[in-house]
Amino acid sequence: MILDIINKKRLGKELTYKELDFFFNGFLNGDIADYQMSALLMAICINGMSDEEVFALTKIFIDSGDVLDFSDIPGIKVDKHSTGGIGDKTTLVIVPIVAACGGTVIKMSGRGLGYTGGTIDKLESIPGYKINLTDNQIIKQVHSIGCVITGQTADLVPMDKVVYALRDVTSTVSSIPLIASSIMSKKIAGGADKILIDIKVGNGALVTNRDDANKLSRLMKEIGRFYNKEVRTVISDMNTPLGLTVGNGIEVLEAIDILKGKEKSNPFVDLCIELASDMVSMSLDVSFDEAKDMVIEVIENKKAYKKFLELVENQKGDINKLKISEKTYKIKSLNNGCISKINALNVGKLVFNLGAAKAHVDDKIDYGVGIKFHKLVGDNVKKGDVLATIYYNKKLPEINIENIYKFE
Amino acid sequence: MILDIINKKRLGKELTYKELDFFFNGFLNGDIADYQMSALLMAICINGMSDEEVFALTKIFIDSGDVLDFSDIPGIKVDKHSTGGIGDKTTLVIVPIVAACGGTVIKMSGRGLGYTGGTIDKLESIPGYKINLTDNQIIKQVHSIGCVITGQTADLVPMDKVVYALRDVTSTVSSIPLIASSIMSKKIAGGADKILIDIKVGNGALVTNRDDANKLSRLMKEIGRFYNKEVRTVISDMNTPLGLTVGNGIEVLEAIDILKGKEKSNPFVDLCIELASDMVSMSLDVSFDEAKDMVIEVIENKKAYKKFLELVENQKGDINKLKISEKTYKIKSLNNGCISKINALNVGKLVFNLGAAKAHVDDKIDYGVGIKFHKLVGDNVKKGDVLATIYYNKKLPEINIENIYKFE
Repeated sequence: MILDIINKKRLGKELTYKELDFFFNGFLNGDIADYQMSALLMAICINGMSDEEVFALTKIFIDSGDVLDFSDIPGIKVDKHSTGGIGDKTTLVIVPIVAACGGTVIKMSGRGLGYTGGTIDKLESIPGYKINLTDNQIIKQVHSIGCVITGQTADLVPMDKVVYALRDVTSTVSSIPLIASSIMSKKIAGGADKILIDIKVGNGALVTNRDDANKLSRLMKEIGRFYNKEVRTVISDMNTPLGLTVGNGIEVLEAIDILKGKEKSNPFVDLCIELASDMVSMSLDVSFDEAKDMVIEVIENKKAYKKFLELVENQKGDINKLKISEKTYKIKSLNNGCISKINALNVGKLVFNLGAAKAHVDDKIDYGVGIKFHKLVGDNVKKGDVLATIYYNKKLPEINIENIYKFE
Repeated sequence: MILDIINKKRLGKELTYKELDFFFNGFLNGDIADYQMSALLMAICINGMSDEEVFALTKIFIDSGDVLDFSDIPGIKVDKHSTGGIGDKTTLVIVPIVAACGGTVIKMSGRGLGYTGGTIDKLESIPGYKINLTDNQIIKQVHSIGCVITGQTADLVPMDKVVYALRDVTSTVSSIPLIASSIMSKKIAGGADKILIDIKVGNGALVTNRDDANKLSRLMKEIGRFYNKEVRTVISDMNTPLGLTVGNGIEVLEAIDILKGKEKSNPFVDLCIELASDMVSMSLDVSFDEAKDMVIEVIENKKAYKKFLELVENQKGDINKLKISEKTYKIKSLNNGCISKINALNVGKLVFNLGAAKAHVDDKIDYGVGIKFHKLVGDNVKKGDVLATIYYNKKLPEINIENIYKFE
């Protein structure tokens, strides 16, 4: 039976719900060995899955753990997920915006994967911020201020944890059907009514090309249709770091600047406005254009910024105590010319070397370190101009400017 | 590095010798986990390998253990391998024939895999037959009588053992490049000068269709060319059991009948003559037709039969003590008609149920049980005619005639 199932997928045939259920739950229970699961995962990676197989797998993933129910909270609860990127602080910006517009957001975020911290790590740079709310605390806070950003509460999709851990060490991560069922099962088990997915495309991202991003987008929407939940997707570039900063505390400060309306004219601000407008449109059931007007208004009238302060206060954070490292180093241009590229992956590695993310589970994150860009892609610079400031604490790591910047 | 290599093959790219060496030896040393090896094996199964990759892998396999050197024995040493089948007693027939013609054969055989015994199991049905000769005993015997059939002496290709064990439980057995490097590495490490491969094609065989058999044949010849060893292949049918008997002792008796010239007109005898002629042609460097004349002559003048008796005596076997079970059951036809098919796989299962092969390592083989066919494919039979005799010892298992015979 085990070998027949692996062989069927090896030959590119479609597996039934029953076969997938037997195999994946067998793996979760320890009846099927990891080397058998990795053979099946590789066959899935290469030969793909039909939509019906992906629906079946998503259901098997969801059924493996708890499913949250926030139906007591009035309004349409929207959730949002990003496939991850260097400098991605969108959650910090858009959750307060959506709540300020009257939308309802329950956002469960994660810790860092790879080179940089996750949203939860970034929020922990605010001294006191509680990231482990109970279901009751979540419901109470959303009733009171319309939003929450917290860590995962219940045991959602335990199947994903064990399967992802194996995918991570067997080069079977970048499979569209596996990515789609992994993300969608977590979002659906998380209890959202509508879901926005920000698909990042670029070198070092989970998805490296537009074609795969389009396939992932279509598949996630189909899963949403199967579960009767509206899914919207935004496909955005991840070759360049997002925004002006990469780190933890320093990204919180950039989010505040955007919420205050201080930053208006960079691609990351545009992306935040687009994502927030989609969420407002979904939560309040208005058109995207109406939603966008509302988003711009709550930034201009500071309601979004005030909502951010409310959010932090409600979760016991003290924003005034957030500290950035005082030791700085300025990266100066070695060239005259126009910046054609800032390599996101290498910026991630640099910030990782500064101590902004964990190499091992036991490591401590240095919340005060990071990088701030003064010049972005498309800017003309002269030799000697300051391109970026690095905030460091211990020893400054070696910095190879040519690995980060390209000029034309 | 590990993940990069798996990913490269996942994308269908060619791996270098260095990458394959790192990965396979890493697995043998325990530095690379079985779940990582099974992911790579599945990627190889689906995406294939170039000839250069197969040459590299074969070399890595050979280098993992001992390589035998029989250059002290004069003459061209030929070896032969069959990819396995139900009732395959070709080795017992052709080794004495080739030696009787003046050829030199060092044949290392294996035990049973799957439903029926291997050549070594069949020889052990002859009381006293020694199957564990030392290298010196082999050399002495070949000097004296020109042939030997023994179990594997040295630690040949330990890599194949661990990789095959993993392939067996991950549905990655039937891959042409993996089959080719597994078989050829063992034959080359076994010290033969020239190699004959009998590729069986049919349901339940390692290779199920002619197209794959042709690919395997081409690839094995290419590996031979790479190692400067002549390789010939014969592609033969394995949908029908080979010859008139399936079991252990009963197959030895059939081999003796063929060597005595008692059996002349069935497809299995024709196959034995073809394979023996190829081996004589290779060992004595004569044409196939000349070799075939010699083969027919040594059967007719009983020299082949006498060589078989010499072989058994030299290895301390007492052929007179070979016993077949006295309890018999006759399978009678339920139909009038022409036999269109005898299902090899189901015959194998029946003989397995009689006790002719091991279900577990600790089981004992019942050498006296088996089946003898009185009617073959193409024969016209009437209802009530005896189709076959079953030799059993303990309880007669349930026999479903319609699972074995098809009529037209």
